[in-house]
Amino acid sequence: MDPILGLALDPAPPGSRRRRDSLYRQLRTAILDGRLRAGLRLPATRALATSLGVSRNTVVAAYERLLGEGYVSARRGAGTVVAALAGRARRRPPPPLTTASPPGAPPGAEPVRFRLGVPDTASFPQALWQRLGGRAARRLIAGPAPHADPQGLPALRAAIAGHVSFARAVACDPDDVIVTAGAQQAFDLIGRALVTPRLPVAVEEPGYPPLRAALSAHGARLLPVPVDAEGLVVAALPRRARLVCVTPSHQFPLGPVLSAPRRAALLEHARRHGALVVEDDYDGEFRFADRPLDALQTLDRDGSVLYVGTFSKSLLPELRLGYLVVPRRLRAALVAAKAAATGAGPWLAEATLAALIAEGHLARHVRRMQRLYARRRERLLEGLTGPLAAHLEVLPSVAGLHVAARLRHGREAAVVAAAARAGVAVAPLGVHYAATPPVAGLLFGYGNLDEAGIAEGLQRLGTVLAGR
Amino acid sequence: MDPILGLALDPAPPGSRRRRDSLYRQLRTAILDGRLRAGLRLPATRALATSLGVSRNTVVAAYERLLGEGYVSARRGAGTVVAALAGRARRRPPPPLTTASPPGAPPGAEPVRFRLGVPDTASFPQALWQRLGGRAARRLIAGPAPHADPQGLPALRAAIAGHVSFARAVACDPDDVIVTAGAQQAFDLIGRALVTPRLPVAVEEPGYPPLRAALSAHGARLLPVPVDAEGLVVAALPRRARLVCVTPSHQFPLGPVLSAPRRAALLEHARRHGALVVEDDYDGEFRFADRPLDALQTLDRDGSVLYVGTFSKSLLPELRLGYLVVPRRLRAALVAAKAAATGAGPWLAEATLAALIAEGHLARHVRRMQRLYARRRERLLEGLTGPLAAHLEVLPSVAGLHVAARLRHGREAAVVAAAARAGVAVAPLGVHYAATPPVAGLLFGYGNLDEAGIAEGLQRLGTVLAGR
Repeated sequence: MDPILGLALDPAPPGSRRRRDSLYRQLRTAILDGRLRAGLRLPATRALATSLGVSRNTVVAAYERLLGEGYVSARRGAGTVVAALAGRARRRPPPPLTTASPPGAPPGAEPVRFRLGVPDTASFPQALWQRLGGRAARRLIAGPAPHADPQGLPALRAAIAGHVSFARAVACDPDDVIVTAGAQQAFDLIGRALVTPRLPVAVEEPGYPPLRAALSAHGARLLPVPVDAEGLVVAALPRRARLVCVTPSHQFPLGPVLSAPRRAALLEHARRHGALVVEDDYDGEFRFADRPLDALQTLDRDGSVLYVGTFSKSLLPELRLGYLVVPRRLRAALVAAKAAATGAGPWLAEATLAALIAEGHLARHVRRMQRLYARRRERLLEGLTGPLAAHLEVLPSVAGLHVAARLRHGREAAVVAAAARAGVAVAPLGVHYAATPPVAGLLFGYGNLDEAGIAEGLQRLGTVLAGR
Repeated sequence: MDPILGLALDPAPPGSRRRRDSLYRQLRTAILDGRLRAGLRLPATRALATSLGVSRNTVVAAYERLLGEGYVSARRGAGTVVAALAGRARRRPPPPLTTASPPGAPPGAEPVRFRLGVPDTASFPQALWQRLGGRAARRLIAGPAPHADPQGLPALRAAIAGHVSFARAVACDPDDVIVTAGAQQAFDLIGRALVTPRLPVAVEEPGYPPLRAALSAHGARLLPVPVDAEGLVVAALPRRARLVCVTPSHQFPLGPVLSAPRRAALLEHARRHGALVVEDDYDGEFRFADRPLDALQTLDRDGSVLYVGTFSKSLLPELRLGYLVVPRRLRAALVAAKAAATGAGPWLAEATLAALIAEGHLARHVRRMQRLYARRRERLLEGLTGPLAAHLEVLPSVAGLHVAARLRHGREAAVVAAAARAGVAVAPLGVHYAATPPVAGLLFGYGNLDEAGIAEGLQRLGTVLAGR
């Protein structure tokens, strides 16, 4: 019995016709009923014969019969491959990712995508990641199997504690850090450990839909709280909210910074009403103007702030690595939630990231990217304050990888659709409102667009808006 | 303002004493209150000066003062590093992982660990994983940022569908596959999507505690069902169970295979009572005797089986990659659960695994490991049926990477503790029982022990048991 071939073989006498037939019949049945799918490569005859304990001739004969009847095909170098049968249901190929030639754009032009939450992919230090990953893997396979820690690899927790204390003045110990599968798992763990059905949870309006989805999934009753030029309107916070979710460095999606008086007021509100604060610092490491305000976690004296960080913007969203810094009294509950949800994280990726941070590469990379993003942001703001200013009002911000702009006139959905037809993808602002009448606007994620792409995208958008 | 240094700098006139003092004071405060931790490397003077917009001399002066006062140290090649201060609370180093010289073992001998759920780490195809990972990373950074699919990378889902159809005769389409962060997330998603508070869920007794924890976390009422030599006693299944969790290939932890009549009876039970079956195939790809029975998923005609697979045994648990194959009508709910829990998985790891499977490397690796494990298993069974047979009764099994044995006499916890003192780590059987009086026994995970280690471990255990 071949361990990779889960098909029974009739144990007829060796070399007999019955044994050969049995193998042929079972392979044919498996192909016909779809268990062996088109394009799948069958094992080499010698390997299959060895593991089935039959002669190689038996396997060769079965394969040849299948070949003669068109159930498999043999290609030089590719081995014996299950054929596509005309009668079977075929899945349609997915639609192409890019529209070849959008109207309004030069023929053959690629669409320009202002994507939210995507950093400059091309700058990812791939060779370095490979090298550090190889070193971690060699250490892994040479040593005893590591202890699986659901809180995260101790070396990575230590590196993160050093990183956030340095980068964000967040005071913490490696024991206060919980490594997560991106910020999304951080929100989910908060939901699992702290949210009970109908628990009132304050969220920013507008805000980040995946956060709301994560907390709703655990039964939270969401209370949208408005945002103005100083960030979350703390005076409007309902007293009954047990959890307050906020993006102080760069309000998502509008952009303002939570002002110093509001920070103090929010912590005072939390203290007085016994609420917890979730500080989502999703892209605050990229800052373009005055000095940053202290994080809520830094200012907090009552252990009431859970800080959520991510490496999606500073490195790559595809790594799916983030973290929580939590007050000591909540740690056990959150680690237990992580253990039940996914158990320990991916050791290899965690060890690679730990080395990247500990050796100073991440800090250097962030500094380099800071300069790159500053230029892109400048180009974007220049473009938005030219003729486009007749249609769009840029909302002020000093950090992060997107810029929000209010539409002075026109329906948001119609503008977004017309822009897409003209070869420029831009996210609508309105969909980020949960309850109140939305403000019409556009969100320009610029992290993964070079300056030429930004200029081209804005030019196409200008044509669309001028023609309306 | 340095983007990686979240400390405010007093904007005094350039070159002034006040500006230098301010930087020194703020760094010192940050060191004293622990925001800058001992061992952390400060940025190079030039880099910090540039990003703060001050002269390099200002930074050098601040660093030198900190150095003179012992707050930082400067090491050639290591830059300026925050010093360990005597007055600060220090965390104790973790205890060493290995006891140097266990009594009963030769002096200086390493402990022998019969670990459950750990494959042969040294055989992991590390160089290949690196190479395929590098290729995937280069593709990622060269192309447009990929669409994040919470169901899993389409190429990986296609590869998994091919793999399970071939390896386990599980009939499925790439659309039926959901990629998960290990089997643990698969259990959690089932809990999230299908378990409501107090829902009766049948689990094997004894069984796998992390599965029970995952379902309990969502409020499941667990109903333990006994296991005998034919696996789960289907006749003892409570009719009210809405979900039945079972390990048909290699019952965890006892070892029997769920017999063919029981398989048919279980599916009939599910059909009649409208229950769903969770088929956990955690190490069934390693089989050492007669041919395997069809998977429940293969036999199922009613879309009532959720198949859980993992790459923890065939590759490495540290990858944290597993999958679900689900009936079509449950797919949307489970994918929504995945989206809320962690969002899309790690693109790089998923793309690397997809290539590993699609190019036939995984199948080859499993075939090679099958031979390695067969030898180790033989050695283990030989050892257990020698003089040790006076103390241990091996429970029959034909698959998987551990063997269970009943203790003929003696208290399980005392034997496990005495074994640990003698330098051999072996898992107790009893802790896997949830409700009924446990059977005393030992579990011998042998995946990550070579033949010499197995022999040595059993010899030490023999000394312990003979002396009791």
